[in-house]
Amino acid sequence: MRLKAMCDIEVSAPQDCPTVAMLRPSSGLAQWLASEAYFFEPHVPSTEYVDSFGNLCQRFVVPQGRMRIRVDVVVDTEATIAVDPNAPATPVDQVPDAALQFLLQSRYCPSDKMEQRARELVAGVAPGYAQVEAIRAWIHGNLDYRYGVSDAATDALDTLARGAGVCRDFAHVGIGLCRALQIPARMVVGYLHELDPMDMHAWFEAFVGGRWYTFDATQDAPRGGRIVVAYGRDAADVAFLSNYGDLTTERLTVRVELHADPAPPPLAAP
Amino acid sequence: MRLKAMCDIEVSAPQDCPTVAMLRPSSGLAQWLASEAYFFEPHVPSTEYVDSFGNLCQRFVVPQGRMRIRVDVVVDTEATIAVDPNAPATPVDQVPDAALQFLLQSRYCPSDKMEQRARELVAGVAPGYAQVEAIRAWIHGNLDYRYGVSDAATDALDTLARGAGVCRDFAHVGIGLCRALQIPARMVVGYLHELDPMDMHAWFEAFVGGRWYTFDATQDAPRGGRIVVAYGRDAADVAFLSNYGDLTTERLTVRVELHADPAPPPLAAP
Amino acid sequence: MRLKAMCDIEVSAPQDCPTVAMLRPSSGLAQWLASEAYFFEPHVPSTEYVDSFGNLCQRFVVPQGRMRIRVDVVVDTEATIAVDPNAPATPVDQVPDAALQFLLQSRYCPSDKMEQRARELVAGVAPGYAQVEAIRAWIHGNLDYRYGVSDAATDALDTLARGAGVCRDFAHVGIGLCRALQIPARMVVGYLHELDPMDMHAWFEAFVGGRWYTFDATQDAPRGGRIVVAYGRDAADVAFLSNYGDLTTERLTVRVELHADPAPPPLAAP
Amino acid sequence: MRLKAMCDIEVSAPQDCPTVAMLRPSSGLAQWLASEAYFFEPHVPSTEYVDSFGNLCQRFVVPQGRMRIRVDVVVDTEATIAVDPNAPATPVDQVPDAALQFLLQSRYCPSDKMEQRARELVAGVAPGYAQVEAIRAWIHGNLDYRYGVSDAATDALDTLARGAGVCRDFAHVGIGLCRALQIPARMVVGYLHELDPMDMHAWFEAFVGGRWYTFDATQDAPRGGRIVVAYGRDAADVAFLSNYGDLTTERLTVRVELHADPAPPPLAAP
Repeated sequence: MRLKAMCDIEVSAPQDCPTVAMLRPSSGLAQWLASEAYFFEPHVPSTEYVDSFGNLCQRFVVPQGRMRIRVDVVVDTEATIAVDPNAPATPVDQVPDAALQFLLQSRYCPSDKMEQRARELVAGVAPGYAQVEAIRAWIHGNLDYRYGVSDAATDALDTLARGAGVCRDFAHVGIGLCRALQIPARMVVGYLHELDPMDMHAWFEAFVGGRWYTFDATQDAPRGGRIVVAYGRDAADVAFLSNYGDLTTERLTVRVELHADPAPPPLAAP
Repeated sequence: MRLKAMCDIEVSAPQDCPTVAMLRPSSGLAQWLASEAYFFEPHVPSTEYVDSFGNLCQRFVVPQGRMRIRVDVVVDTEATIAVDPNAPATPVDQVPDAALQFLLQSRYCPSDKMEQRARELVAGVAPGYAQVEAIRAWIHGNLDYRYGVSDAATDALDTLARGAGVCRDFAHVGIGLCRALQIPARMVVGYLHELDPMDMHAWFEAFVGGRWYTFDATQDAPRGGRIVVAYGRDAADVAFLSNYGDLTTERLTVRVELHADPAPPPLAAP
Repeated sequence: MRLKAMCDIEVSAPQDCPTVAMLRPSSGLAQWLASEAYFFEPHVPSTEYVDSFGNLCQRFVVPQGRMRIRVDVVVDTEATIAVDPNAPATPVDQVPDAALQFLLQSRYCPSDKMEQRARELVAGVAPGYAQVEAIRAWIHGNLDYRYGVSDAATDALDTLARGAGVCRDFAHVGIGLCRALQIPARMVVGYLHELDPMDMHAWFEAFVGGRWYTFDATQDAPRGGRIVVAYGRDAADVAFLSNYGDLTTERLTVRVELHADPAPPPLAAP
Repeated sequence: MRLKAMCDIEVSAPQDCPTVAMLRPSSGLAQWLASEAYFFEPHVPSTEYVDSFGNLCQRFVVPQGRMRIRVDVVVDTEATIAVDPNAPATPVDQVPDAALQFLLQSRYCPSDKMEQRARELVAGVAPGYAQVEAIRAWIHGNLDYRYGVSDAATDALDTLARGAGVCRDFAHVGIGLCRALQIPARMVVGYLHELDPMDMHAWFEAFVGGRWYTFDATQDAPRGGRIVVAYGRDAADVAFLSNYGDLTTERLTVRVELHADPAPPPLAAP
């Protein structure tokens, strides 16, 4: 399916504020970037680099006052996501080198403290995909999706204690519980078609049966229509804006629409 | 300066033809990709990867028959290029690790056979930028820019023997002569504003005075207004289309224009 | 100076245990690996990969029972470390791309919760090296170096609360406080000559004045004689053994000696 | 099997000569470096980096006069190499991204000029492994292994014309012919147990049936007992010494022996 997505952010800074943004999806094996536009107002110089996870990172300085950052993309992605309840656990000695880092504890996913909880949740469940799905379903059924109970300091243990959080918190809990079972798990941020209310979104992927599968504890059922913007160990790695100075988000508007015409009409003759 | 560039290619294939394209510039330190659109007709699945030089490479299969590939970009780039006649040679033991590969001989730049010629051309010239400029000026003044004398098999020695070639051949001669003097040199392909006649373009960069400088033997004087699409050791690394099967380029249209409004008017309200 | 170091580990596992070791230093800009030997008993198959920080990681499965792992290295390294009390802070917009990740909060260094403490500690101190040294000196003077108060779950906030810890804890506190001031800081594990009592060691580096400097809060004064084994964001990234199953360290012996002869006598004739 | 290999080189330089060496094998999936020693006489400072192929490269300046470089390694490797006459060709669109570069023409393997010859040699042979083996066998049966007919400027076309060459030339011919058939092929340099006469050796690998297979046109039959030191597109990438100034190899001694004891006796008690 072809999706058209937009993220439009207005920020304010009391003084010049160095910032790193992760707002540009890249093409890869799983999605194709058909078009994009990256717009600043006022226009400031920017450079881009690729971080150790392969994410595109834009560096610029938000000037004192107000600034608007808008990214528009058209992306081909899958309408449905892969599901395989029988996918077995991948033994750690068979996990690819590059996935091993997603077994480690991290800032928001202190999996080293979550093993007991994880063991309880998957008691009697077959190792692999079914365990991850049991975790995902438990989060979906037992944690409240609620704004205001969590903030940038909230980790997976906090969320379990409070029994509530938002998409990022749900993902952190899922990741932490998976890693505690020696299942590699990583954070994903991006867009989800027909998310309600619409916003930037976060979910997680787990490595079972020899590949990454998508899990989203905020949803009732597996759903495609996703655009990946960045991967990381947790939210610390994939903030859509990392500011090094005071920065206030005054407005954030996100839109995701089905692109009417998957294969657009020929361009005007050259 | 902000440039709007377009490359529109029509190819035909007698049967399905696996192809790798390098048509998408990336943002980096030197240029910023403000917007882009990548269009296929018919629409075929495509994936993208980053090669060892950091170039974005698009993989797809050209289906039997005709296919159109069009890339539109808007890029912020420098209006002028850096020039420093006094930049000294960088001793090889001070060349950064990543630039060392650009000292090696390669398919179209057999620098191991070009040392004598290089020594003659720079006799009496101060080591460094001035040598590279002497080489560039010599190519510009002594080789004829002419279509039809070279093809995909022509290397720098062939071009020196024939006394003529096109932009790619001029770049190969420049690169080969630089490397023969132990000056790292690399191939660049991309767009040049107001190139006449307009086409995809090729030039080279040489590493002197601790950084890369741009040289273009097809031009009378240093000129900015360049959009880099890919870097490589020579043309073998940076073909805009590498086809693995029969593929005919039926038409290639390139346009580069000054973008009227460097800071475009605010987008429609979200 | 030339050092000879050895790490000899005996582990036991109730059943086969997939393990990733980081025990092999690599050559680079700062140190040269003159010789090494990596020994397993019993001998098990092993593979090696390079992680995203550039560390050499050895993968193998510890078989049920006992296993011995021993690494011997001879390394050329600096006898003293660079010190520059006047090195200014590097503004975040000038930090190299690759160092930006060391500004992010991490599992053991929740710098997002440490800003107030950091501000207090450096009140009135000139930004840059002097701030990092003030932090290091404060840790050295105010935290007790003591075994038994911390474990694998202890983070920098825990250590501040307890007022005591070991080398790894001291490094975490230093890293967290630096990052809270927007100074990139990273974990280093390795060997230190004449460490007393001898053991594997941990310290940190901070990026100020445009380069990385070494800081060690366990020591009275700056000391060289270090062999770096691995870099990371914190201890989660650089465990010398990461086991995915039950594994007990039965014995760990570390030795570091000055290598008598910096330029050894000629080898026997070939 | 466990091999002990040594390369001992004596060079002379009329003046200081910046040099890049590739003499240190690395551990990976296919071989394990159990121990090594890298020795210079006189002792000079050296740094190490990893090139774009993953090879370990040592940088140093050979001082005016004589210098000796000696590398000793003990490596676990396979006693036999994989052979699969039925492995099919891997269609180009299924070749992994990282292997695509080994389809490109290069300095010593101008595969763009070798297609007709390649087609003739594999007429009637099933695509894939069998084609590569047909090429390898043809080289072995039709080219003379002879010193003195080739030098550092000799490419695969020269070798075909002369009908003779050494291991490096045979590998270049094999690589060029494979690439001309759209089979990825790469240069390998390293050690071969019981090579006669003993020397540094070169061979090639081809990507068929979804993996790399080893081919050696200098040998009568498939043989294991290989230690890989470096991979590249051709010999330009993997010179064991790349000198940037005058450098003469006065002596080169190579030894490869079966290591008596695959699992050595326990080390002295720590």
